[in-house]
Amino acid sequence: MTQMMKAAVFVEPGRIVLDDKPIPAVGPNDALIRVTTTTICGTDIHILKGEYPVEKGLTIGHEPVGVIEKLGANVLGYEEGQRVIAGAICPSGYSHACLDGLHSQDGGSCRHGIKALGGWRFGNTIDGAQAEFLLVPDAMANLALIPDGLSDEQVLMCPDIMSTGFAGAESGNIKIGDTVAVFAQGPIGLCATAGAKLRGATTIITVETVKARMEMSRRLGADFVIDYHKADPVAEIMRITQGRGVDVAIEALGLQSTFENGLRSLKPGGTLSSLGVYANDLTIPLDAFHAGLGDNKIITSLCPGGKERMRRLMNVVAAERIDLKPLITHRYALDRIEDAYELFANQRDGVLKVAISPF
Amino acid sequence: MTQMMKAAVFVEPGRIVLDDKPIPAVGPNDALIRVTTTTICGTDIHILKGEYPVEKGLTIGHEPVGVIEKLGANVLGYEEGQRVIAGAICPSGYSHACLDGLHSQDGGSCRHGIKALGGWRFGNTIDGAQAEFLLVPDAMANLALIPDGLSDEQVLMCPDIMSTGFAGAESGNIKIGDTVAVFAQGPIGLCATAGAKLRGATTIITVETVKARMEMSRRLGADFVIDYHKADPVAEIMRITQGRGVDVAIEALGLQSTFENGLRSLKPGGTLSSLGVYANDLTIPLDAFHAGLGDNKIITSLCPGGKERMRRLMNVVAAERIDLKPLITHRYALDRIEDAYELFANQRDGVLKVAISPF
Amino acid sequence: MTQMMKAAVFVEPGRIVLDDKPIPAVGPNDALIRVTTTTICGTDIHILKGEYPVEKGLTIGHEPVGVIEKLGANVLGYEEGQRVIAGAICPSGYSHACLDGLHSQDGGSCRHGIKALGGWRFGNTIDGAQAEFLLVPDAMANLALIPDGLSDEQVLMCPDIMSTGFAGAESGNIKIGDTVAVFAQGPIGLCATAGAKLRGATTIITVETVKARMEMSRRLGADFVIDYHKADPVAEIMRITQGRGVDVAIEALGLQSTFENGLRSLKPGGTLSSLGVYANDLTIPLDAFHAGLGDNKIITSLCPGGKERMRRLMNVVAAERIDLKPLITHRYALDRIEDAYELFANQRDGVLKVAISPF
Amino acid sequence: MTQMMKAAVFVEPGRIVLDDKPIPAVGPNDALIRVTTTTICGTDIHILKGEYPVEKGLTIGHEPVGVIEKLGANVLGYEEGQRVIAGAICPSGYSHACLDGLHSQDGGSCRHGIKALGGWRFGNTIDGAQAEFLLVPDAMANLALIPDGLSDEQVLMCPDIMSTGFAGAESGNIKIGDTVAVFAQGPIGLCATAGAKLRGATTIITVETVKARMEMSRRLGADFVIDYHKADPVAEIMRITQGRGVDVAIEALGLQSTFENGLRSLKPGGTLSSLGVYANDLTIPLDAFHAGLGDNKIITSLCPGGKERMRRLMNVVAAERIDLKPLITHRYALDRIEDAYELFANQRDGVLKVAISPF
Repeated sequence: MTQMMKAAVFVEPGRIVLDDKPIPAVGPNDALIRVTTTTICGTDIHILKGEYPVEKGLTIGHEPVGVIEKLGANVLGYEEGQRVIAGAICPSGYSHACLDGLHSQDGGSCRHGIKALGGWRFGNTIDGAQAEFLLVPDAMANLALIPDGLSDEQVLMCPDIMSTGFAGAESGNIKIGDTVAVFAQGPIGLCATAGAKLRGATTIITVETVKARMEMSRRLGADFVIDYHKADPVAEIMRITQGRGVDVAIEALGLQSTFENGLRSLKPGGTLSSLGVYANDLTIPLDAFHAGLGDNKIITSLCPGGKERMRRLMNVVAAERIDLKPLITHRYALDRIEDAYELFANQRDGVLKVAISPF
Repeated sequence: MTQMMKAAVFVEPGRIVLDDKPIPAVGPNDALIRVTTTTICGTDIHILKGEYPVEKGLTIGHEPVGVIEKLGANVLGYEEGQRVIAGAICPSGYSHACLDGLHSQDGGSCRHGIKALGGWRFGNTIDGAQAEFLLVPDAMANLALIPDGLSDEQVLMCPDIMSTGFAGAESGNIKIGDTVAVFAQGPIGLCATAGAKLRGATTIITVETVKARMEMSRRLGADFVIDYHKADPVAEIMRITQGRGVDVAIEALGLQSTFENGLRSLKPGGTLSSLGVYANDLTIPLDAFHAGLGDNKIITSLCPGGKERMRRLMNVVAAERIDLKPLITHRYALDRIEDAYELFANQRDGVLKVAISPF
Repeated sequence: MTQMMKAAVFVEPGRIVLDDKPIPAVGPNDALIRVTTTTICGTDIHILKGEYPVEKGLTIGHEPVGVIEKLGANVLGYEEGQRVIAGAICPSGYSHACLDGLHSQDGGSCRHGIKALGGWRFGNTIDGAQAEFLLVPDAMANLALIPDGLSDEQVLMCPDIMSTGFAGAESGNIKIGDTVAVFAQGPIGLCATAGAKLRGATTIITVETVKARMEMSRRLGADFVIDYHKADPVAEIMRITQGRGVDVAIEALGLQSTFENGLRSLKPGGTLSSLGVYANDLTIPLDAFHAGLGDNKIITSLCPGGKERMRRLMNVVAAERIDLKPLITHRYALDRIEDAYELFANQRDGVLKVAISPF
Repeated sequence: MTQMMKAAVFVEPGRIVLDDKPIPAVGPNDALIRVTTTTICGTDIHILKGEYPVEKGLTIGHEPVGVIEKLGANVLGYEEGQRVIAGAICPSGYSHACLDGLHSQDGGSCRHGIKALGGWRFGNTIDGAQAEFLLVPDAMANLALIPDGLSDEQVLMCPDIMSTGFAGAESGNIKIGDTVAVFAQGPIGLCATAGAKLRGATTIITVETVKARMEMSRRLGADFVIDYHKADPVAEIMRITQGRGVDVAIEALGLQSTFENGLRSLKPGGTLSSLGVYANDLTIPLDAFHAGLGDNKIITSLCPGGKERMRRLMNVVAAERIDLKPLITHRYALDRIEDAYELFANQRDGVLKVAISPF
């Protein structure tokens, strides 16, 4: 007899509801995780609004913290009962992309064509983490043990926003002494700010207008915070850098304005590191691109996943190099996830991230 | 009494004429070169048409081959009479950009603002090479001795198109076994094709429609040449790569179509290496950019200059790894440079590059 | 009833003999390959001589070409009867090292401690390829389909010596226009020479004394071949480079002399890329190391494996960028492998590589 | 009439004395600096002891803080009276090495052969900074303005030990989440520890035995400090890393023991970043090198110099990312520099760095 569980399911644009679904069967290379904490991502809101298409009936969510409930027959090196996380992106390990070092772009399990989806599977091409149980494919590549002494909430940001935000700093190849601008200080942008500081940036300029986010930005490493309702960000960045421009600009929202302002802030030879999920075509203004003569780079990064990335990120937390718990502004039981979506989608009540627990 | 020389001078949009100008005075860190061979670049045509603005009265040209006529008081390590070239881009060596390894973006001598121009000075911010004599600034950083046994025509492509074209392959970080597409096979694109082969690309696909260029493309390394009037280049590239896409696409023209087709040809995680000088804003289509989730890179490269780059490129020629002499389809005396511009601007008579000699 | 096969087995130092062993059972993630061609590597001679320890009874060999005989239950994307190769190094794909991009140092299956062995399994920690059948672990990460039209002998070098030799050029980060020295022109060194040329080195200097190898060296890309019995290699390299030294030196033998001469040949800031398997401690002479002030790099590379690496290398062959068939100087049936070892161990009869076929 | 100044001069092994020398004449590309603060480096002690040879009569010292006294005729962009520093290594900007991005290995001004010395000139090939006045060659590449608000002592470590120590972290290519071991916590090692933290290392293990240095090590970022008189450093590192080894080991002393322990601490694929100035040949033990199969890197770094590096390092100080003033344990007038040498050479009284002022 199939056992049932609660899961947050995409029904149609505008509707994600809590529903009953069977607890998944465990294949030979899978692991079944009992979810203890999860959260909602901005991308889930894109799904909710129908801006990013997924199949009807899919369980949403890609940020799991949990306990191993059951291991597939071939899964060695783990034990049931261990506390684990898995990254939002689940590389198989065996695809051509993985063997080429491009683990995020593992296309092994894509249904919608080789190019569009990268290795993002949870809540995208397979059932996700906003449920009582989560099936983790290619478990030996993806399960990362939580170090003793770290709480669920301390590691809740590792699967996605910490990994993504840090990737913004890493793809920009930030060097000690760099000047970095981060456009937008939502959860991802805040992690990019923290990542820029961790990589040795010494002048970090962030752009935001929401007061609570501006404060959090300073706390996580910003040296200058520009309120874009009060000053032109590019002009202000040029003033702060005495006309030099920034070594690296990180785009963390997914809009033309943040993309374009990022480009315009760059020094000759500078890099725009883009993290946002865009919903529209982008324009590169000729002058902002120096007609193609500026030795500039535009680099997009999908959230790096896999157990080694997760191990490293949890080390950063364990070593107290960063504390992202303050980003968790609200907590909900899984039963009330629809309320959590309503709050998060409307950015009410100063919400940054919500913690969801299935009990 | 000031001695005079012949020089090709920008008068106004549509008019570059041969005129008399004084032979320049030699400052302490300069060298005066007697030009023996030079050429016309596509960028010069942008200047001619008024699409790229320079000051009236400026001598055009940035591809010099010549003989040292006179050395400034501080210039050590050279002798008058030596045969030399200098790169199109003349880094000072002492700017912040140079000391950061970004020699092409040396802004030390820019007049038009720190960001727009990079280190391109000849025929842009100072008098250029289409003249009897050329003043080379920061001579110790820029004069490169021509190895014995190499003719002017053998090294004529080193200052610009060979350096630029190779940079397309280098910025794309082509690896052994890569599949590479090059969009447009004019002089720069042909050099990019040769550069891709030199870096170890094994499937090189080029896109062009002019017959002579398609043939030259095969000769310089293309494994597949797509005539874009006969087939959709992206579809054809996907067919050749069995849906994989290319590791690196090189844009070598400066149009929306080549830029966009380059993006659309990329594998997930692939790099678009852009060489073209654009004249308009660019659009990044959302789907071609995978909504920002594709781990893609867009990298623009300005022609690397400086004496070490020139030394390396002349080594490539001396070692017979490449033969670019066939690109020289026409030869003119400096007296007839206006005819050469007319031919080159209108792409008549199968012209690829013209060699111009002041005698 | 267990079926039996012929296999070359390590008995004790000095003795590798052809013996009967059971055809291996196929686990869920494995593939059984019917070997059609294999070869003997210099490392196998180290094993034969007892210089590199393996367990008694182990089947030797790590360079398989064959046909899929049977696939494990979980192995998708392949069919029985397909022609395949597998690299000498078999990454699991799911280890921490693999997920960090260090596929060669996958320790997942090591028995002798995490540090010593990297991901080399065939003929080292598990039975190898000098047999009628070979069990390939983690088959989805390791089986690479042979493109139509390529013969066994054309791809026989891909699993090890081509991958290793090219890695010497890649780890040295050879750039277009570089000057490169390769010390020793055995099979690996010859592939390093070819790899250096593929990466754009323009002055390639090789060091060898065996006539046939010196000739093959020129054929594969050497511009200068130094006979170390006739001239001091370092002095000769300094003469050729006019005192500059080389950008990259590749060590391809595993001796103090080649290691030290490599170091002494470097320019300031140059890289020694080391491929040899050493049998003794090494000395770094103080002067050759510039007291630690030379900004030098010493980089060792183990043969990169995995199906994507194999795909790329076979592309290099298919694109006719390199022809390594001439390295196959002798052919043997598996029945006569003991003779092949005798020939190869004693470097008789101008042997470079032997092709071994089990029928 | 030549004006005279005080300078610390190398007389013979064992003797550096304060003497009178003429204030240097200023060439066209030079700047004369009135030194306001300088210091003694461990390398100066090598010179004192005769372990590193320099010419008799040379002024020692390569860590200047001062005020521009006089500018050469060609030096633009500076004014007399500005407070400046110059790096220990003075790249010319125009050498082949500089134009190749290898600024530290500028051999343009070497007297002792192209390979041995890199770009280190002050107190090595030309008169140094332990004097009332210092002549800075290639001033436009080397003079870096001190930002308002920073004291001499705050920037005194930038010219050498901060630049060198950080280079240890940078050459090791430390990534966020890395585990790093630093061998020896003298001034350079302490800066390497700080640099490792700035680059995002999360487990930093240092090895030292002097109490004051162990404490300073913790203060600058060490998570674990091993007293090598109380525990075997390699065994302890393996215990802390649960047998994994470190991603990067930084050698900061110049001894066989620190070099070898660094190698033995590495994970497979790990990097040994070597900063020490060695005085003897080194041995690479076969097992510590995994017979050449470990995908390991050994990278040496000379102190990066030039005005852009200095600008970045002063930014790190200005942004309060690091405070190295506590390293200054003693202060002397230039008149008493012989006492300072005596203290520093004998490592008495807990000395880390001494500040020397000519007034």
